[in-house]
Amino acid sequence: MEHKMDLFSKETYRERRSKVMKSVSGGILLFLGNEESSSNFKDNWYPFRQDSSFLYFFGLDLPGLAAVMDLDADQVILFGDELTTEELVWHGEKPKLVDLAHLVGLQEVRPSKEIASYLAKSSQRRIHFLPPFRPENTMKLRHWLGLSTEALEDRVSVEFIKAVAKLRSIKSEEEIREITKAVNHTVQIHRKVMQHARAGMYEYELLGMVYGEALSGRGHLSFPPIITTDGQTLHNHRYTNRLEPGKMLLGDFGTETAMHYAGDITRTIPIGKKFTEAQREVYEIVWQAHRSAIASLKPGLRFLEVHLLACKKIAQGLKTIGLMQGDVEEAVQQGAHALFFPCGVGHLMGLDVHDMEDLGEAYVGYTDALQKSTQFGLKSLRFGKELEAGQVLTVEPGIYFIPQLIDSWKAQNMHRDFINYDKLERFRDFGGIRIEDDFLITSKGSELMGMPLESSPDEVESLRGNAE
Amino acid sequence: MEHKMDLFSKETYRERRSKVMKSVSGGILLFLGNEESSSNFKDNWYPFRQDSSFLYFFGLDLPGLAAVMDLDADQVILFGDELTTEELVWHGEKPKLVDLAHLVGLQEVRPSKEIASYLAKSSQRRIHFLPPFRPENTMKLRHWLGLSTEALEDRVSVEFIKAVAKLRSIKSEEEIREITKAVNHTVQIHRKVMQHARAGMYEYELLGMVYGEALSGRGHLSFPPIITTDGQTLHNHRYTNRLEPGKMLLGDFGTETAMHYAGDITRTIPIGKKFTEAQREVYEIVWQAHRSAIASLKPGLRFLEVHLLACKKIAQGLKTIGLMQGDVEEAVQQGAHALFFPCGVGHLMGLDVHDMEDLGEAYVGYTDALQKSTQFGLKSLRFGKELEAGQVLTVEPGIYFIPQLIDSWKAQNMHRDFINYDKLERFRDFGGIRIEDDFLITSKGSELMGMPLESSPDEVESLRGNAE
Repeated sequence: MEHKMDLFSKETYRERRSKVMKSVSGGILLFLGNEESSSNFKDNWYPFRQDSSFLYFFGLDLPGLAAVMDLDADQVILFGDELTTEELVWHGEKPKLVDLAHLVGLQEVRPSKEIASYLAKSSQRRIHFLPPFRPENTMKLRHWLGLSTEALEDRVSVEFIKAVAKLRSIKSEEEIREITKAVNHTVQIHRKVMQHARAGMYEYELLGMVYGEALSGRGHLSFPPIITTDGQTLHNHRYTNRLEPGKMLLGDFGTETAMHYAGDITRTIPIGKKFTEAQREVYEIVWQAHRSAIASLKPGLRFLEVHLLACKKIAQGLKTIGLMQGDVEEAVQQGAHALFFPCGVGHLMGLDVHDMEDLGEAYVGYTDALQKSTQFGLKSLRFGKELEAGQVLTVEPGIYFIPQLIDSWKAQNMHRDFINYDKLERFRDFGGIRIEDDFLITSKGSELMGMPLESSPDEVESLRGNAE
Repeated sequence: MEHKMDLFSKETYRERRSKVMKSVSGGILLFLGNEESSSNFKDNWYPFRQDSSFLYFFGLDLPGLAAVMDLDADQVILFGDELTTEELVWHGEKPKLVDLAHLVGLQEVRPSKEIASYLAKSSQRRIHFLPPFRPENTMKLRHWLGLSTEALEDRVSVEFIKAVAKLRSIKSEEEIREITKAVNHTVQIHRKVMQHARAGMYEYELLGMVYGEALSGRGHLSFPPIITTDGQTLHNHRYTNRLEPGKMLLGDFGTETAMHYAGDITRTIPIGKKFTEAQREVYEIVWQAHRSAIASLKPGLRFLEVHLLACKKIAQGLKTIGLMQGDVEEAVQQGAHALFFPCGVGHLMGLDVHDMEDLGEAYVGYTDALQKSTQFGLKSLRFGKELEAGQVLTVEPGIYFIPQLIDSWKAQNMHRDFINYDKLERFRDFGGIRIEDDFLITSKGSELMGMPLESSPDEVESLRGNAE
């Protein structure tokens, strides 16, 4: 039968495995693939999503797998089961697991049930594992290693995490091609939404358009789409608002390719043909912050500095329209701008839209020397360390008017020197604006991933020219 | 703020709770809501799906809830937390949990962290719980009740399961309206696929159409859609085939309403305008089996008998085209027809597409007096017991040519008296045909749920008239 799993060459996977095996000092590296995930009863499954590190080193996009790398014996073993005839009746013929294993350069495949005894026999050696983020994998680790959930947390291997994060952070040419494919698909769907959104529609109609276009192109969604006229809510997963004239629509979504590399783009558009005057003023500020942040990208610069640059551009812009006041540098240092921009300016992207978030920001986005800040706003910056050629990141400044946060800060007299709360009252129902694109860090600076998508105020209004 | 959660009246939920509380002899009924479910990292969530029994008794479509009913003190307590200001920034304002609780007739809401001590204080009493199907809920029960996973399985309350199954099996008028809405939405999408499928398209393009139409109408999918030219694979979740002239397309999918009541319909169509002669012959057999099964539906009849009737119609039809032979009654009794129809003729439908599958078929679909058969084919019939007015079921006979199963049976000389293996060779690549609609059992017989959807061979060909 035809083999439909999308894979890189076996040499790619072999090389990746060889590199991680050389990066950890000794013992056994244990990789857990994901299982099917149940929605409202056991056999009613969400779409299967393989663990990203498992995909990176083994490529096999199937549930119920695990693998070990014995660093001392230089041996790699895949654990998994062939389908029974009865399973074939329900789920269809699949290539044999041993044949798939060969396609990714693996020689040794053993039945799933043998992993428990394999690990038990190795209990005197160091068994390295990554932090589990699915409860079934936590339960497996408890069972196999005989540890409590708390003990598991202590025993996660930082050495292993760092080795994986180092490899996955720098994208190869073939990975960049996959991400570009995801971004181009994402661009195409964004442009369609930007052209078709109309007053009177409901957000869920556009959600349907996004899913329809993504799946029709053999893609998946890389995260739950944000398609909302309440753009001030950063991770809004409700879709029940009606699009009203005078409001804006914020669309933040991306697709994954069949190999699960992600794209992630945000645009904010007027529901009508043109922004209102106030909307355009704020949009200009975000757009200039976006451009400045992009222009600053280069290897060696901490992404934290890119974030702070965007913060200052935002604070400066808000000062010109009278919502902030005082010294901009000082305002940003004290975190006053975070009332309007309470999140980070971007994040790594790859096999995960927030790449390797499961491995922990402390290792992926920061270093022992550069710890994450605890200041409101800055603490939401997932990646702060030095940029390196081969990294792929989003750049996504925004300005948000969040009534609950405004009320809370005002009641506590927070940053009164920097914020003009009286003028702010008029912006309570403004919503939020974010502009996001994806970039590859190069030896000289950065490159936009994929085709450009309209982002300047004029370009956006021109795309909306046919609206209503 | 506007309240967007769809709910029945508080009296409905009160009445349901009152009934279940009267049906169990004593102790505490413990209900676990679902949590958010992670795909590739903790905070990248699949669309939230609440537990269906939790929805039935409490209506609240939010993660992180639990509830208890103290049968002796006649007290109901909801456990859950209000959002913090910081969560509001990310996820948006929601109605307060205490206000939502009032909408479903609940007076007492306590913080989540109190449930552990509440249950610990009650450890001398019987704590009834339903079988958990999500690993995080298994972990919670282990923790709260101090039991191992194996001990949990032993301690699941059969009395509680039976009480819930009895209530949920019979649909109220308002539930029937919701299911009808789901079925009508499902019909509309099926008709669109039946009209738009064309040779040269890929299955995933139609998957995109189905998701797009479902979500655009504020629906969800009630299960992973089956949209395949490999209709012989019963639960096929791959979408990579190209639609080829001369083949058939089997579409088996349904939507859920915002309140999560399900629809579930299957149609099989020719890729071109007309069935081939062989396809039409087999289609006729399935369609007649479908009609016969529907005509037989009435209260008091065991659904097992409806299943066997469909099996006989299928065996009889296959005999007329020379694929089966010998005595039809005997062939069905011995299970020879299961080579072509290895699954059940239908299942209960409601808040779950396979209603209450998590509670266990032994209690939902069978009784102490009528146990499920272990015979291949019959053992996949999820519901066998007596029909009652108010039940909603699918009727979905089919004929499938499954090469692996044919080869396996032939090699074992299975049922040679009844099966003409020589003639069967020509059907190896035929695929599969299923026709499925949803029915309400009434006092007199049954009623089709929702609008009729074309199903006779002529009607289907007429819909396909504009194809290519």
